Parts: sequence; structure tokens; C-alpha cells
Amino acid sequence: METSTSPQPVQVSSSELHRHNTKDDCWLAVHQKVWDLTDFVDKHPGGADILLQCAGTNATRIYDEVHAPGILEANLPVDKFKGVLQEAQQEHDNKAISTCPETGHPPLFSLISAADFEKVASEALSPKTWAFYSSAATDLITHTQNKALLRRIMIQPRILRDVKHVNFKSRILGLSSSAPFFVSPAAMARLAHPDGELALARASALEGIIQCISSNASYPLGSIVESGDPGQPFFFQLYVNAERDKTTELLRSLAGAGIKAVFVTVDAPVPGKREADERVAAATTVRSAISGATSANDKKGGGLGRLMAQYIEKSLIWDDIAWIKRTSGLPVVLKGVQSVADARMAAEYGVDGIMLSNHGGRSLDTSQPAILNLLELRMRCPEIFTKLEVYVDGGFERGTDILKAIALGATAVGIGRPYLYSLVYGQEGAEHLTQILKDEIEVSMRLCGITDLSQASPDLLNTSDVDYLIRTPNKFPDIPGQRERAKL
Amino acid sequence: METSTSPQPVQVSSSELHRHNTKDDCWLAVHQKVWDLTDFVDKHPGGADILLQCAGTNATRIYDEVHAPGILEANLPVDKFKGVLQEAQQEHDNKAISTCPETGHPPLFSLISAADFEKVASEALSPKTWAFYSSAATDLITHTQNKALLRRIMIQPRILRDVKHVNFKSRILGLSSSAPFFVSPAAMARLAHPDGELALARASALEGIIQCISSNASYPLGSIVESGDPGQPFFFQLYVNAERDKTTELLRSLAGAGIKAVFVTVDAPVPGKREADERVAAATTVRSAISGATSANDKKGGGLGRLMAQYIEKSLIWDDIAWIKRTSGLPVVLKGVQSVADARMAAEYGVDGIMLSNHGGRSLDTSQPAILNLLELRMRCPEIFTKLEVYVDGGFERGTDILKAIALGATAVGIGRPYLYSLVYGQEGAEHLTQILKDEIEVSMRLCGITDLSQASPDLLNTSDVDYLIRTPNKFPDIPGQRERAKL
Amino acid sequence: METSTSPQPVQVSSSELHRHNTKDDCWLAVHQKVWDLTDFVDKHPGGADILLQCAGTNATRIYDEVHAPGILEANLPVDKFKGVLQEAQQEHDNKAISTCPETGHPPLFSLISAADFEKVASEALSPKTWAFYSSAATDLITHTQNKALLRRIMIQPRILRDVKHVNFKSRILGLSSSAPFFVSPAAMARLAHPDGELALARASALEGIIQCISSNASYPLGSIVESGDPGQPFFFQLYVNAERDKTTELLRSLAGAGIKAVFVTVDAPVPGKREADERVAAATTVRSAISGATSANDKKGGGLGRLMAQYIEKSLIWDDIAWIKRTSGLPVVLKGVQSVADARMAAEYGVDGIMLSNHGGRSLDTSQPAILNLLELRMRCPEIFTKLEVYVDGGFERGTDILKAIALGATAVGIGRPYLYSLVYGQEGAEHLTQILKDEIEVSMRLCGITDLSQASPDLLNTSDVDYLIRTPNKFPDIPGQRERAKL
Amino acid sequence: METSTSPQPVQVSSSELHRHNTKDDCWLAVHQKVWDLTDFVDKHPGGADILLQCAGTNATRIYDEVHAPGILEANLPVDKFKGVLQEAQQEHDNKAISTCPETGHPPLFSLISAADFEKVASEALSPKTWAFYSSAATDLITHTQNKALLRRIMIQPRILRDVKHVNFKSRILGLSSSAPFFVSPAAMARLAHPDGELALARASALEGIIQCISSNASYPLGSIVESGDPGQPFFFQLYVNAERDKTTELLRSLAGAGIKAVFVTVDAPVPGKREADERVAAATTVRSAISGATSANDKKGGGLGRLMAQYIEKSLIWDDIAWIKRTSGLPVVLKGVQSVADARMAAEYGVDGIMLSNHGGRSLDTSQPAILNLLELRMRCPEIFTKLEVYVDGGFERGTDILKAIALGATAVGIGRPYLYSLVYGQEGAEHLTQILKDEIEVSMRLCGITDLSQASPDLLNTSDVDYLIRTPNKFPDIPGQRERAKL
Repeated sequence: METSTSPQPVQVSSSELHRHNTKDDCWLAVHQKVWDLTDFVDKHPGGADILLQCAGTNATRIYDEVHAPGILEANLPVDKFKGVLQEAQQEHDNKAISTCPETGHPPLFSLISAADFEKVASEALSPKTWAFYSSAATDLITHTQNKALLRRIMIQPRILRDVKHVNFKSRILGLSSSAPFFVSPAAMARLAHPDGELALARASALEGIIQCISSNASYPLGSIVESGDPGQPFFFQLYVNAERDKTTELLRSLAGAGIKAVFVTVDAPVPGKREADERVAAATTVRSAISGATSANDKKGGGLGRLMAQYIEKSLIWDDIAWIKRTSGLPVVLKGVQSVADARMAAEYGVDGIMLSNHGGRSLDTSQPAILNLLELRMRCPEIFTKLEVYVDGGFERGTDILKAIALGATAVGIGRPYLYSLVYGQEGAEHLTQILKDEIEVSMRLCGITDLSQASPDLLNTSDVDYLIRTPNKFPDIPGQRERAKL
Repeated sequence: METSTSPQPVQVSSSELHRHNTKDDCWLAVHQKVWDLTDFVDKHPGGADILLQCAGTNATRIYDEVHAPGILEANLPVDKFKGVLQEAQQEHDNKAISTCPETGHPPLFSLISAADFEKVASEALSPKTWAFYSSAATDLITHTQNKALLRRIMIQPRILRDVKHVNFKSRILGLSSSAPFFVSPAAMARLAHPDGELALARASALEGIIQCISSNASYPLGSIVESGDPGQPFFFQLYVNAERDKTTELLRSLAGAGIKAVFVTVDAPVPGKREADERVAAATTVRSAISGATSANDKKGGGLGRLMAQYIEKSLIWDDIAWIKRTSGLPVVLKGVQSVADARMAAEYGVDGIMLSNHGGRSLDTSQPAILNLLELRMRCPEIFTKLEVYVDGGFERGTDILKAIALGATAVGIGRPYLYSLVYGQEGAEHLTQILKDEIEVSMRLCGITDLSQASPDLLNTSDVDYLIRTPNKFPDIPGQRERAKL
Repeated sequence: METSTSPQPVQVSSSELHRHNTKDDCWLAVHQKVWDLTDFVDKHPGGADILLQCAGTNATRIYDEVHAPGILEANLPVDKFKGVLQEAQQEHDNKAISTCPETGHPPLFSLISAADFEKVASEALSPKTWAFYSSAATDLITHTQNKALLRRIMIQPRILRDVKHVNFKSRILGLSSSAPFFVSPAAMARLAHPDGELALARASALEGIIQCISSNASYPLGSIVESGDPGQPFFFQLYVNAERDKTTELLRSLAGAGIKAVFVTVDAPVPGKREADERVAAATTVRSAISGATSANDKKGGGLGRLMAQYIEKSLIWDDIAWIKRTSGLPVVLKGVQSVADARMAAEYGVDGIMLSNHGGRSLDTSQPAILNLLELRMRCPEIFTKLEVYVDGGFERGTDILKAIALGATAVGIGRPYLYSLVYGQEGAEHLTQILKDEIEVSMRLCGITDLSQASPDLLNTSDVDYLIRTPNKFPDIPGQRERAKL
Repeated sequence: METSTSPQPVQVSSSELHRHNTKDDCWLAVHQKVWDLTDFVDKHPGGADILLQCAGTNATRIYDEVHAPGILEANLPVDKFKGVLQEAQQEHDNKAISTCPETGHPPLFSLISAADFEKVASEALSPKTWAFYSSAATDLITHTQNKALLRRIMIQPRILRDVKHVNFKSRILGLSSSAPFFVSPAAMARLAHPDGELALARASALEGIIQCISSNASYPLGSIVESGDPGQPFFFQLYVNAERDKTTELLRSLAGAGIKAVFVTVDAPVPGKREADERVAAATTVRSAISGATSANDKKGGGLGRLMAQYIEKSLIWDDIAWIKRTSGLPVVLKGVQSVADARMAAEYGVDGIMLSNHGGRSLDTSQPAILNLLELRMRCPEIFTKLEVYVDGGFERGTDILKAIALGATAVGIGRPYLYSLVYGQEGAEHLTQILKDEIEVSMRLCGITDLSQASPDLLNTSDVDYLIRTPNKFPDIPGQRERAKL
């Protein structure tokens, strides 16, 4: 059969092959044979999209995963056979076949989970950027447990409910969101993609979600906001500058710039020790367009997270919250609350929301996992949920992860690293990630037997595998005569 | 000794060797030497069967696992030495020696556990079929825990009882079964073997067990039933079609077709996200002969499980059970109950049985393991076992697994994936698997000191390693003022 | 320095080297140079023994692990240099250097733990023998947990006690033992070494411990007993034969043959499913000299454990104990008790001892670990220890393992597989293993702050990591109307 | 761009390159090109230090980790290009590039954690020294759990406190220490570095911490003390010699020699069985300059820990404490307390401090982790902390590890193996390790929201993940009639 197609085949160079890469002129190479599939694009049982992804390339590998041998020869007219691909190119293409010719990454449609983005990013980002984004404090225990604990909470789905129509629209601080999650602030998004935070803003606009902009963003605040839709709501994450005047100035500008709330980071008066970050020296100086923080390797290493945190105020105290609120004229959320006691303090000080967070495991290692903070709060202090909004982040990657937090009383979940990783594909990557998360939430709600987030309650969950981890208050006896030891 | 057998040996080609492959003309090659063992077949201490499995082949590898070198030379007359095997063939045969010449798989007799079938299937099935059968939801947590939790339940055998005669015959919904398990419904069995569900029906007939036929079976219902024995009982697993008329028609036909009960799937109003399945595109369209469900790759991927579920009704509710019961005129079992509350609802709605199942971990990941649902039900709601029959599936592979479920009150256990995997060997595979499971149950009962399943009670078990996982009811305090949050 | 020793060196063949392999004529090769070390043997700082182990061989590797380069050249007179080792031999010897020239195994003195014997046996025994000895039931869960649970029990040593003199002599059923352990019965010891059970008997004599002889021993009972010292006490492990007359005859002969107690196996009315054993066919028929049990591969596989168990009575009941006691005229111990209920039954039936055992994980997989049975018995039924003696086996390998059992009330511990593995070295191996265990017990007692086993109490232990595994009695509610379900 | 720098490049030998290795004459090779960077040293954005580390070497690898290709060519004048590095040297240098040219180890500045020192030491120390330092008893369970349990204790940081100024100065037995840890005694430091304990003394002086000198130190006590600062405080770890006179003499000399307290080891009347140590024979005899203990391989193996412990008194009892105190005239600390009962005894006998220690897992395996002893003591016996000082060691490597112990009531933590490992770099290594630990403590305190160690209380911790491991007193019922069994 093979010999009958072309007794004396023409040699086709890879550059020639590359020229035929459109819907109207679509060639493909499979097992060294080059075919003209233009007439066949719309008839492909697997859809035109996948076929066009490979237009103008050697598609041998992706073809072999799906098709039996000989199908092309058996089904295409002989005149669609255009020749034999030249040798040298072949091997190279075989290796590259599962990646887009333009970007060098796997095609975006082939990514189907947040974890897929992490995998691609670990290979696509520069070693320094990967170290900066992915690193966490010292032994990665909190980082690892953030995710592990989420997975140990079990779900007990309910059955035989009408789940045809599902609604997971949310309100966060009075603002509409198409889903119960938002883009957690993360520094220096431009390291992953030239569009950096601008891409996130545009994706957020299209997907109807809210982006929280980092104090250490790579783009100016104005540029980010303007790149979105008119009136699109944003949050702003604040590191207070030890030079308070600079922060005062910044706070005064926020409302006018379109910011709707200030997320004050309170879990990082100093940066955590992220060893993977320290171990890779930065090739060039990195500078935030908002805070002005600039990196320069020093004798401790090249930790971007540490070097860019040098301006941060170490003396920020509860009484400063009023100043932030007054100066910005905006709702204030504390990002990094990690105890019931501080949650109560937050309510007393009139903050509008708290974010249960350990900085994605990046601040203090062995600090307790974020979901455990939420579980403890729900169990020990249910009234707090009526006084302020509660958010949580750290390790959330799945629709079920998010749904569990909502069932435990959270208003919304912050998604951080996955959005940074999605920027390997720029704006499209962030959109695709958002769609994946929404899809997972929708499927999970249906499989749980609920159609609205208001139906998500602890009754859906079996937390027995982690309940023993909740802190027992006052279990330690006093040391006689040491009452002077300050109770924290 | 070697040199004395043939100073100038004849060359024997592998095709020549192959011709002598019967009991009456049985040649074997061992270490390049070809022997005529015809006269020796019935005297082989290891039995004639094993020897005949290798007739006409190079048996070097299997020989070396068992025998010391030189035994053939020392014991066979010189005239049984037929020559030296030709070189080229040798290496190839060495690789193939542990598999049947006909099928390319290991000989069936060498499989001695359900896990062995899984291993063979992972190599023998096409990548797409393997992905479809073996995949489970997202991070495989429920899939993994289904089995892991079973193994953490300990047994405390009793001693010095007369266990000569053991009986594990069972009655399921009033029907006789030779064992306390049945074939769980699984879609598209023809992907594993041309005989598909027909082979399962025939094996069930021979082994005296009941097959539950999937709505997405590859063969028509009539063909499957007819391939079994006259009067052989079957169950039918139902996905209700969003076009209800189609389901009405199907339900009306069941009793006449020989179906004895309807297992309504209630844990999959939408399909779970099985990523391994999505990642492998299907080469060809797949179509169920019963439901008519048809697959076609789309932009989300090639998930057969998802693509074939598009017709399923998302609005099925408790009140529909009466309709199913009335229309079919058959006992109704709910497949996919996952909470005590729903088990109670089932009893209220008059269903005849419930199947504690999480769809083999394929629906909602992190939903709680099936055996934990059974344990919770046994502990919190013992009266339910007097109102309806309780079945369980998901991860059951061992006689001890099955015995534990029976001891916790289950009437029978569903065996799903192992039967699909056994179809690599067609009907014979399914029979062999059934015999292995029966043998394991018999041995386990004897070693537990019981002779009848009615003696299997929780007293045999030590569940202390998993008891802490049982959900504590009502442990979460109410959030003040949020009583409007619907209790599920 | 090297060039000065011999400008034109003689070639020494390896066979020449080998001839000088005694204390009075001791040559060694190191880095191709052959030296006469006869005068140096008694001066070796590391002792003469190690040096003599290497006499007549290429000792390069063992030398390099210990010595700096050039020491021989710097310290020995030039006339002790005998020449250069011939090339061809060199590489072979390098590979063999860590094993005894005679046996092909590592020198016995280099084994310092029971685990070392297991490692050597896994390489030295034939695949079939290794499979038979090391295999356990199905998924190896009980086998693995037997050891794992022992290690999770913590010790809290006491300090500042005079531990100069330590005594761990024990009395087992009134017989003296130099240590609180005995040789557990294990079948077919001759598969590991031609001396088989005879070697164990001689080692037991020398070390002052008691051997329990298996019903499936490879040597006749008389031969084993006679190979020991006059008057040396033995126990006998009994499988009751379905042909009871044979057992009657055997029982009547025991006391006369020097047996002091009968250990009746009660956890194996049928053999467990040991898959590793089944998967390796036996090359030859194996036959026990005592029971007459004979193996022959069948269609289920080659499981020696299963094939040799076919004669065992499946109908042995409590009332038969009186018959065994009466017929043998000996104390009776039940081997394989696994529940508090059966321990109580044993006391009621007047047995002299019980052995908490799950057959080394070989009978019913997921049956609870042996040490957990002991812990449960100690916690729930302390009075049993005043009515009969309690032994335990399964996974015991360390002095601390044994000490923990004694602290929990056991009289002695059975050591099974390690003694089989020690037979790679015959009698010497069994002696060396015994000395290692005794040494570990002595060190452990001193480090615990005790000097006599009577001081070993639960106070020494912290069992908190495993306490939750102890079965809670009667925690399952009754199923209404099912009281007829036999309470076991 | 490359071709323009030098059309006909000079060959530079590696020895030539090596000559230019100072700040005033600094050449480097990168990708075979040799550059003169003397004028650039002070302008290097990454700092002069790192650049000078590589002066005179092939810095290709370290350059590539940080810089994009072509930066040197683009930014340096052509006349700074000195030629092409000769081939042969290149490959060797590539391999060596991440290590200091002088020492062969990675540059000290690149080590950023205690674990980094362990990694370097495992490669840099001789096999025997590594075995002696790193080994622990039998199965390493206590050794492993020491560290693992520390990591399972969670922290709940407090927020919005002024943490600008942090103070972790401590007082240990009335002596000032710049940090809440001290150098735990460890034998034979000279095996790691010629300066041995002298280097530790000098580093302790510079860093303001206290060194506890081992009885088995490689240097004489006087030399060690003199190598430090005048008046620098030291502790002395005591093994009592079975020849008591020798100990009496030693004790009398301590105060005069500058020792401030005696740490009596009570957890090792005999040495534990450290198998890795036994398996490596010592090449040479090792001798302690203080105790005179000398090693010599024997038939049990080459365990330095065992061989050097032969002189130790096995009959040391509580009443001897008074003798030690009286003879030395110094405060006495018991090192190796492992139970609440013994802690109480210590208080009764008037000791000044106790060190909760299991000898770094080196004495009795499966003895309970050190932090668990502290937790148990804090929970069950809080008053003890008012009667004596409590220290702890074993597995402490992180600032958070140390902070947890302080929060549970410890006065200070002993750091043992990490200081031995740091000696790969001599005094500088010990200083660098100290700075790392101090830095981690400071960061951890700030992130916890505390500024003084007096604020560290159990309120900061969530110990729920390990609480279940605390021993329950008196949970075992008595065995009737066995009250004579000595309560320990």
C-alpha cells in the first residue's frame, strides 16, 4: 500500500512544509510522508482545531497516539501525497511534536488541570523565575501540607437532586464575581510573560473575576487597571513601606485608580527563608513598578522574595489599620491571619475581611495549613463569619478544593501560583485556567447534589481525617510562678 | 555430557519446531537444544499441562525457573535430541517465552490474583481502552483510598472450629448466587475483547453468579441475555436519558428480556473528570448498543466516560424512583448512595436495595471510600439492614475484602474493573477470575473459623485503624443568623 | 616508595597465592602486590581473625575499606614482598573479595544483625527456597505490619541504675533457657543447608536455647533430637493429620523421643495463599521426614506451603485438645491464638500456654499484628498471664523487639525466619544469630536501666502510637431482629 | 559578536589562569574565554565577593547559572579578553567549578542551612568519620523521629506586632549566651578537621555561645579552653570512668580549667549499637586526649562509638551525683533524661539542670523522640521548670525547631552533629553555621510576632499532630498477684 502512493517521491523540506500552515492550505507530515489535508480539515472526526494545531508540522507523534497505522494511505486520494520529509528535520520535529511550533510549549488545549500548568511552567520558565515563583519556606512543610490537608477532607455527595442548572456566581465585598475565587496577588508577573499583570487583568475582565494586584507588581498600577475593562473591579495587596509617607501617597491614589479594597499583608513583616530562591542568583536586576523594590544579589544569596522585601515596615501594628482605612477610603482585608485570636482582633478593629493565609507556605515553615485555620475558625468561632468576610488561599488547585472552603464558610478562595504559571501562555493561559477551575466547580457541585453555593455547608463534608489537628485551647498547664510570661 | 549427545547436531528452524506443538507430537527447545518430549508428556512431575503450554516453542526461560541445568541431558535417551535451534529465532523466543504463543499474553493459569489481571490488562489493552477502564476522577484519591481502607481493616480469626465444609452461597434480591459478589456494570466491554459482555454472561452462567449489565454496554441487551443460560438472572444498570421517553421504553422492555432488577445510577448526574481518559484521544467512534451513546473527541479531550454520558438526565429526583419501579415492574436498587441520610431516604422511598459506591472513584474525587460508607451505616443506622439490601463496590479485589463487607452487613459486593481486565482472555478469563475470588473467600472463611456467611459479623473484625474516619454528626456549630443556609 | 620495593617483580599466579592460606603460611595480595604476612598475623591491630579470613586471596577491597594507601609498603620489610599477582585473576578476585572463598557468601563475622542474614539468604538461597521461606499471605500486609508495629512502640529508658550485671535467663514451661526466645518451628530446613534441623539442634545445644521442631521437618524427629546434647529439651509443633491414627501414633512417640511440649498449630486449618511461593514451581519433589507431606506442583502453582499442608485436619476443635494432651502426656501450647476470646477459651480448656501468632503473616492476610494481640491481651485480660504462659512471634528481629514483648507480659518470643536464613551458614550461622540477639537484649536491658527480666514492665514502654489500634469491644450496635446471627 | 573579539586567540594555560587570582589581578575563564576582570571587581552587581571566589578559575558553570550568554562580550572592552583556555583543563574545571579550589568543597557562602553542612560532610569526610558521626542505633528510628516529630509541631503566628527589634539573648545556668543554643558535646572533632575542638572553641568565642566539651575530645581540655577567649565559659560532658579515681582527678581539675558546669551523661552506661559505625573498620587507632579512650577494631566490628566507651562506669547511680557535685564544685546537669519520673528524681537529688536527650538516637533505638519528652514534661509536670533548667537535643536544625523547644519551656537547645559537620570548614564553618541558626531564629521570631524569648509560650504552637503520642500514665491494669514485679 505504501509503495503504491508514490513510486518516486519528492523530497519536501521542513521550511516548505511550514509554509502550508493555515486552514486554507494545510499540510502535515506523518511518518515522513507529507500530505495535503486542506480539503479534509472540516471533516476530521476529532475536530478541525486539533488538526490545525499541527498544520505545517511533523505530526507523527500526536497522530500515533490516536490513529491506527495506514489510515491516511487508505483514505486519502493519491494526489494528496506531496512527498517525503527530508531526513535531518525529522528527528528534531519528533521531539518537538507535542509542543506548539510558535511557543515551544505543549498546546494550550492539552492542559486540563492547574497541575498541568505547574508542570509546563517548571520547564518553560527560566530557572530563576521558577525558583522565585515555586519556592517556599525552608523545608516546604507548610507548602506541602496546604495541599495535602485539602485532599484529606472527604466529601459525602447527596443524590437524586435536580442539578441541571448550577449557579456559582459570588459576591466578594459587595462586588460581583462569576466564581467564588479571585486572583491572589503575586509579585513580578512579567518574569513569566511580557504582558505580566496586564494579561491577568484582561483575562479577569473576560472571565468576570477579580484580580488582586501585588505591591510588587512589575507594571504600574495605572497600566494594569487600564488594560482591563472600564469599571472592572480590582483589589490591591499592600506591603506598608517603612517610609510611611510613600505608603500614604500610594493609599491615597488607590480609589481613584479603580481599586475597590486593600488587602494588607500581615504574615510577612520580614520575608520567609525560601532556599530554592536564594540558591539561584538573578542574572539581572528586577524592579517593581509600584513599590520600587529592587533586587540585587547579596552574600545570603539571590532570593528575589527576600531582596524585594527590604522596604517593608516591620513595626506595623493593629492601630495602623485605621490609618490605612482612613487614608485609602477603601474596605480593608487582612491577608495572613492564622489564629482564631487574631480573627477576633480583626473583627474588633473593624476590618472588612480576613484572608486565612500562610503566604502559600512562603513565610514561616510549619505554620499550620490554611484550610486548618479555616476549619478551626468555623468550629471555634462561628460568629466571626457574620462580622466579616473570610477568604483563604494556599494550595487550592481543584474545584473540590474551592468547594470545601466555601462549605466551611469562606466567601472566596485566592488562587496564586497557578495564575503565575498560566502566564507561560499569556492572557490565553489565564483564561484557560479560569475555565478549567469553573468547570471543575460546576461538575463538583452537580456531583455533590447542590445547585447554589448557599447550599454548601459542612454537612457535605467529612472532616474526620483532619479534625484531630485542630488546636485544643488551654491544654497546657501553667508553670507555677511564671504567669508573667506574656499570654499572646 | 553435552558433547556426547550429538557430535554434529542438525539445525532446526523455529518453524519446524513450531509444527510439533501437540500432545502427540511435542517438541521443545531448551538452551538451543531441541528435544522430542512426546513420550514424556504424561510423566512430567509438574504436570502435562504446563509442558504442553510450551509445545513447539523455545521454553528456555520457563525451564530455567524450575529446573537445574543438565536434567534433560541426564534423563532423556540420546535419540530424543533433535538438533540445535537456529540462531536468529532464539532471541525472539526468549522474550516471548512467558506468554502464550496464540494470544501474546501470559498463560491464564499463571494468573493467580485479581491484581494479576490488572497488570496484564495494563499491557495488553490499547492505550485508549486502558485509560477508559482504569482512569478515575482527578487526583485518584478516592480510587486509591477505596482499596487502601479495605486493607486497613484488620481481622481477628477464631480458632479450633470445624471448617471442613464451607458454604458461601448467597441470595441477592431473592436470587441464588454461588458467591456473595456479582459483576458490577461497566461500559463497553467489547473494547477489551470481541465477545465483550457476551463473554461475561457466559462466564456468569457457568460460575453461577449474576451479571449487572451496563446501560452503555457494547452489545444489545437481548444478545447479552441470550448468550447466557435460559432463565439466567441478570441485573440492569440504568442511566436515565434526558429524553425520558427513551428510558420509559427501555424500562418496559427489561422484565421481558430477563432482567430481574434495575440498578439506578445516582452518583453521576454528570460524569466525573477522569484525566487519564481525557488525555488519550479515541481513534474511532465508540457507540453503546443499548443507550446509543456515542463518543467523539471534543475540545476538552477524548474522555470516553464523559463523551458517552452526554445523554444522561441531570434532573433525576427522588420522586422519579416510583416511576422507574412502576414502569419496569422490577425491584429497584440505587447505585451510588454515599451518606446515611440518603440511605434513610432510600428506605422511605421503598427501594429494594442500595449500593454504597462512589463509581469506583470515577465520579467525585475525595468522596469518601466505599467501605467507610458501609462502616458508617453499620455503626450509625443498623436498622437499615432490615429494610433493604446493602451492596458495596469500589476496590474489592480479595476474598478478605469481600468477607469484610459481608461481616459489616453487606449482602453482596460488586466486582467491576477486575472483570473488564479479565476479558483480555475472554470468557475463560472471567471464569478464572471468578474461581480465584471464590477460592480466596473459601480460604479466608476457613482461616477465620467460619463456615457460613451468616457467621460473619463485626466481631471478626478490628476496625480500629479506620474508626476515627467515621463522620461525627452535628459537630459544626451553627453560624448565628444563617439558619437559612439549607441543611442538606 | 613503590618502585623501591622490587625493580623487577616476580609474577605470582592466583593458585600459588591460594596455597599460602594458613596462620603459619599467610600470603595476601593487595593492589596486585603479593605479601607474606605470616610474621605479622599476631600483630595485626584489627586482630588475627580478619586477616586470616583473607589468607591466600586478593584482599584489595577489604584492605581499602580500612587502610590508607602505602601502609604495607611503609611498614613491611622488602623481603616480604613476593611479587605481582597475575592480571587475569585480579578482576575476578576483586569482585569476590567480600565473600568467603569457600562458601561464596560474605564472611559470617561481617553479619551483625538478623536483617543481615535475611539479605544474604535472599541472594544465597535458590529462588524456590527463598520464595518458600520468605513468602507471606497475599498482599503481605500482616507480614509487614508485624514488624512495623513493633518499631512504633517506644521505650522510655530509666537512668542511673547499676546495670553492671545483667541476667536474662528464662524459664519456659519450667525448662531453663539462656534467653527469653526460642527457635520457632519452620518447615524443611534442609532446603537451606544439608544439615537442616540438625544444625539448629546443635546450635541450640551450644547456646542453651530451645528448638521447636516442625511437623514438616526435613529430618526424622529422632535424628534431630539425637544430634543435640543428651537431655536437651525440645518442643514439637503439631499439624494434626486428617487421618487421626497417624497423629495418635506420632503423639505417643514424642515424650519418649525427648520432646517436652506440644505446640498445636491452630491458625492454619488450611494454608494461607502465599503468592510468591505459588509463582515459583519446585524443580523436585520435597518431602517431610516426619509428616510425610510431599509437594508436587499442581494447576494452582508450586506453593510448597500449600502443597505440604494437604494432609492437615480441617475439623480440629477445642475438645480435641484433651485428646492431644492425654495421648502425648505432655504440656500443650496453642500456636496461633489471635483474640482475647480464644485466649480465655484456652485457659478454660486447660492448655499450658498460648502463642500469639499469625503464622508470620503467612495464613490470613490483614489479620492483626502479633504484638497488637499481646497488647490487647495485656490491656483487656491481665489475669490470663497468671493462668498460662504467653508467647508471641512474627517479625521479631531485634533485642528491643523481644524486650518489648517481655515487658508486655510474654514469657518468651519465637524466632522463625531468621533461623532459617542463618542456615545459609549451617550450625555456625545459627550460633552467630543467637549471639547477636543475646547481645542486643543485654545492651537494651542496660540502656533501659534494668538488670533482670522481672523488671521489664509496661512502665518501660510508651505504646501511645499504637494504642488506638486496640479493638474496642461491643462498639457495633446490634441489627434489630438479627440476634440469631451467631456471636463468635 | 564572538568572532570580533579576537580573530586569532592566544592559548592560556590553566596554571597561567591560576596566577591571576587576587582582587588586584583577577582573571576568569567563561566558556573557554579568559577575561581580565580586575577593573570590574568592584562594579559587579552581584558583589565583589562572589566574583573573587572564582578568581583564577574556570567559572563557566557558576556564570551560567546567573547570566545570559554574551554579556561579557557585549560589555567588556576587547582588550580585557586574554585568550582561550587550553582544552585539557577545561573539562576538569567544569566539574570542579562549584567547589573552592583550595578545599575541594563548595564555597562556604553557598551553604545556607544546617542540612547543607550535613550534605557536604557526607561527601567530604572519610567514610569512617562519616560513619562515626552520622550513625545512630540499629534501625535509626529514634534518630529519624527526633527530627520528624519536630516538624509535625505546627506554629500559629500572631500578626500586627512591632517586630523591628528582636532579642534572643539567653542565660544558661546564669551564664550569658548570645542565643538559646549551645554546642552539644561530640567526640573526636579532630577527625573532621585538624583544629577539631579548638576551632569550635574559637568560633564559640566569636559568636558568644557556649561549647560543651566531650570527655572523648581529641584535644586536651586545657588546649581547648585556652584556644578560646579569656574567661570564656565552657561546659564539660562527663563519662564516669569505671576506675573512679581517674574521674575524681578529672572533676577536681575542671573548675580551675575554666569549666562552668558538668553535664553527666546518663543515657549510655553502655554504648548503643550503631551498625554503620561497626561496619567500617578504622584504619588507625583513635585516642581521646581527655579520657584516654582508645579504639581498636575487634570481632564485633569497628564501631568507634563502642570501642571508645569501654572505660565507662556501668554502675553509676543517683547517689553518685552528690559525689560529682562535691568533687567538681560545679553545677551538675544530667544529660539523657527520658522520663518524667527521672526528671522528678533529678529535682529531688538537687541537680541544676536536665538535658532531655536520647544521645541523638545513638543509644537505644525506638526510645522516644527528644521533643516528645519535652512535651510530656511540659504537660505532666510543669512545676519542674521552676526547679531546674531544662535543655533538649536531637535533630534540632532549624530556627523554628529551636523556637518550639523554647516555647515548650526549654532554656536552651543543644546542637551536636551540625557542628561536627561544619568543621569540614574549620572555625569558619562553625561560625557560619552559628550565624545561619541565629538568622533563622530571628526571622522565625519576627514571623511569629514575638520580640523576646520570654514571649515564646505554648500558645504559639499547635501540637495536636503529636499530642496523642504522649504516654498515658497507669493505663495498664495490674496482673493479679504480680505486684512483686518491680514498679520502675
